Amino acid sequence: MKKVVTVKKKALAANEEHAATLRTGFVSSGTLVLNLISSPGSGKTTLLEATIGELGKQVRTAVIEGDVETERDADRIRALGVPAHQILTGGACHLDARMISDALADTQLMPTDILFIENVGNLICPTGYDLGEDLKIAVLSTTEGDDKPFKYPAIFSRAEVTVVTKIDLLPHLDFDLEAVREHLATLNPSGRVFVTSSQTMEGIKDWCSFITDQLNHKRQNLSSTSTD
Amino acid sequence: MKKVVTVKKKALAANEEHAATLRTGFVSSGTLVLNLISSPGSGKTTLLEATIGELGKQVRTAVIEGDVETERDADRIRALGVPAHQILTGGACHLDARMISDALADTQLMPTDILFIENVGNLICPTGYDLGEDLKIAVLSTTEGDDKPFKYPAIFSRAEVTVVTKIDLLPHLDFDLEAVREHLATLNPSGRVFVTSSQTMEGIKDWCSFITDQLNHKRQNLSSTSTD
Repeated sequence: MKKVVTVKKKALAANEEHAATLRTGFVSSGTLVLNLISSPGSGKTTLLEATIGELGKQVRTAVIEGDVETERDADRIRALGVPAHQILTGGACHLDARMISDALADTQLMPTDILFIENVGNLICPTGYDLGEDLKIAVLSTTEGDDKPFKYPAIFSRAEVTVVTKIDLLPHLDFDLEAVREHLATLNPSGRVFVTSSQTMEGIKDWCSFITDQLNHKRQNLSSTSTD
Repeated sequence: MKKVVTVKKKALAANEEHAATLRTGFVSSGTLVLNLISSPGSGKTTLLEATIGELGKQVRTAVIEGDVETERDADRIRALGVPAHQILTGGACHLDARMISDALADTQLMPTDILFIENVGNLICPTGYDLGEDLKIAVLSTTEGDDKPFKYPAIFSRAEVTVVTKIDLLPHLDFDLEAVREHLATLNPSGRVFVTSSQTMEGIKDWCSFITDQLNHKRQNLSSTSTD
């Protein structure tokens, strides 16, 4: 067991190094990188479809999809005319920074203003793996139950943003949104929460405004640094 | 990377040994063991509550709960008057056979007729870890989407049974049940599928009849072996 822990620690340390290199590259290119993490079936791809639609042509977007198997999610993004690169992890339950470096060799992805990384559907494994992103985005569907932030505190305390999805199903569910907001505030007092439905588009505009604000903020920092 | 793979292989081999010992013990005690695996929030604990209620007092039941954090699920089972042991895995994304051995030291659990093991909410990591169970039960909620068997084929091809949950929400969802049945049949031609709702109790009787049949079958095998 000790050996497993040591090997895992080494893998994480190597990942940190790769992630730092990626982050430097994303600063140079002024690309905002969002790492979306959630359970399987929480609606990450559907949220991306709604988000890309709302962002429109004013910004360039690209997507890296992480899945154990199938190109289904990447195909859904490509159908919107947005470049998408599918990483198939085989058995691995998370993406790592080296996989992202390899994906960036796909010349269709870069340059882009916003790079969305849809991690493998998993609330545990992706948490510790930095991908050089600006923000970790936890996605939580109302259908998963309001106890998830308590049961998986690591991701909900590390994610700068939680996007609650499928809010249109609320009338049919026993899901206490206010309790979830309170739990999230306890786990991460500075965290932001967006409540959305990709069916009714509720909350999507606010979420997209937040993204463009983040992009502008990163670009401003970049230009102020380069003129220093 | 090679080193990680080697260490993982060794861990899996050690797990196989532990699991074999557990299985022998469960044969001696005539205990039917079901290992429930699913995404977070697919409704495993709610399914267990409905199942335990339907099975009634005719059989003894006990539950091992696997979670990263919190005793919430075990508390829900204990509220039914059924012994439950909570395993907190910390960061680990699955249970292993040694954790089950340790849990069995909890004298409240055994002897029992049926031992339910609710694995950590995760569609990937628990798949390869044998816990000495009779059957792996994949739980798939309608709210996760009908593409999940394709995207996570390992668990759906290994599980002898898939229980589809939250079927009461079907009118509000874009979920093709027949397509899921077909995918599951392709992945595992001999697999059984139960379609259930723990709200309306649809399908719970059939699922429980299947469980008691499995228990009787195991007991008959046991008595025929012991009289050989």
